[in-house]
Amino acid sequence: MPSTHVVKAFDDELQTVISKIIQMGGRVEWLFSASVDALLSGATDRAASLIAEDADIDRLEAAIEDEAILVIARRQPVATDLRDLFSAVKIASELERIGDLGKTIAKRAVLLGDDRVVRSARAAISDMANFARNQLKTVLDAYVENDAAKATSVRNADAALDTHYTACFRQILTYMMEDPRNISSCVHLLHVAKSVERIGDHTTNIAEYVLYRVTGEIPRDDRPKGEAIESVLAAEAHRA
Amino acid sequence: MPSTHVVKAFDDELQTVISKIIQMGGRVEWLFSASVDALLSGATDRAASLIAEDADIDRLEAAIEDEAILVIARRQPVATDLRDLFSAVKIASELERIGDLGKTIAKRAVLLGDDRVVRSARAAISDMANFARNQLKTVLDAYVENDAAKATSVRNADAALDTHYTACFRQILTYMMEDPRNISSCVHLLHVAKSVERIGDHTTNIAEYVLYRVTGEIPRDDRPKGEAIESVLAAEAHRA
Repeated sequence: MPSTHVVKAFDDELQTVISKIIQMGGRVEWLFSASVDALLSGATDRAASLIAEDADIDRLEAAIEDEAILVIARRQPVATDLRDLFSAVKIASELERIGDLGKTIAKRAVLLGDDRVVRSARAAISDMANFARNQLKTVLDAYVENDAAKATSVRNADAALDTHYTACFRQILTYMMEDPRNISSCVHLLHVAKSVERIGDHTTNIAEYVLYRVTGEIPRDDRPKGEAIESVLAAEAHRA
Repeated sequence: MPSTHVVKAFDDELQTVISKIIQMGGRVEWLFSASVDALLSGATDRAASLIAEDADIDRLEAAIEDEAILVIARRQPVATDLRDLFSAVKIASELERIGDLGKTIAKRAVLLGDDRVVRSARAAISDMANFARNQLKTVLDAYVENDAAKATSVRNADAALDTHYTACFRQILTYMMEDPRNISSCVHLLHVAKSVERIGDHTTNIAEYVLYRVTGEIPRDDRPKGEAIESVLAAEAHRA
């Protein structure tokens, strides 16, 4: 049986990993939020300054991964302790991808500047981003609180984000068809909308690893899905 | 010291996980390849039949993840054995995403059918996809052979895929600007090109986990990057 000293050392190491996840989650949420704000307010300089922030997030992921493997190798944890470490690695990987997508939005914001297409689509983009931001915030709370019900609610709400995405997509496509001079801006903006939709997918993946941490089971059933953009494009193609 | 019996049982379990990765890699490579072929030949029925294939890949990922965690919990491996299991979980997760992107390409192929824009961009799409397919094939070989040099060559070649992507992107953008009736098809095709580029990113991630498996270190330096599409769009915006 391990001594109290070893148990205490393990708990400290595990807490360090969990604290880093919480820290990383906060940074990622902030970067996403700040990038969308910079886009919607046409703040090019602000957007440019955000691009470099993603490197810190990458470093946090590397630190979490290295630390978790070291702890597994050193302490040979089982059951819930192993689940805590495994879910930390998976969640760090999802957060890293959300950070990347936040950086993508900042890059597009730099290129778009104060653009008329962004101004026209502001409400739709803002609604979608707020929804995604709220999902991310809720799943990070669920992680901190080990709250399975909260994680399940995030997983189930992803379909609503798909619907927001489809609305954005439809609107941007209309601007593109109205005036070919809008195409460049619209391609950027479609990419932003897709990035937000993918942030939602990664957020849902985090919800699944929170559920795994709490229950020991990773949900493998299909998630609820919203209206797909394929139907919008098919309808457009039919009209053309 | 563990008995020979326990060591043998562990080796068998580890080999099962590794075999599943190799099997999953083969399925993913096949799905990507078949989806691109269906797209380029306008074979809508074929493309539709491929969409369901991704479910098998998802099941393989779930099996690998479950098995790896069980083996870690049961055998408490250290050093290279732990690395083998950890890299298996990470590689399975990358392969699952490549499978998803293969499915995305099949879905777009269904919507595009025998499309004139696809016919016009065939050579560029085909070159890009062949390059990505070859990278994926090489990294799977590197995994089987534990070949660090091969994995490094894959990682270094990703920049060339970025350049292919930029060429595709530029061409598709031109078709879009030439004739607004092409917009729907071009949006699908931009998505296909982006999916191939992302397959390249996941392939490079696999290369990094092969290196980790062989050397114990995950490369954390920046990868070489090719020309970014941002420069293309910035030039277009300037012209408009």
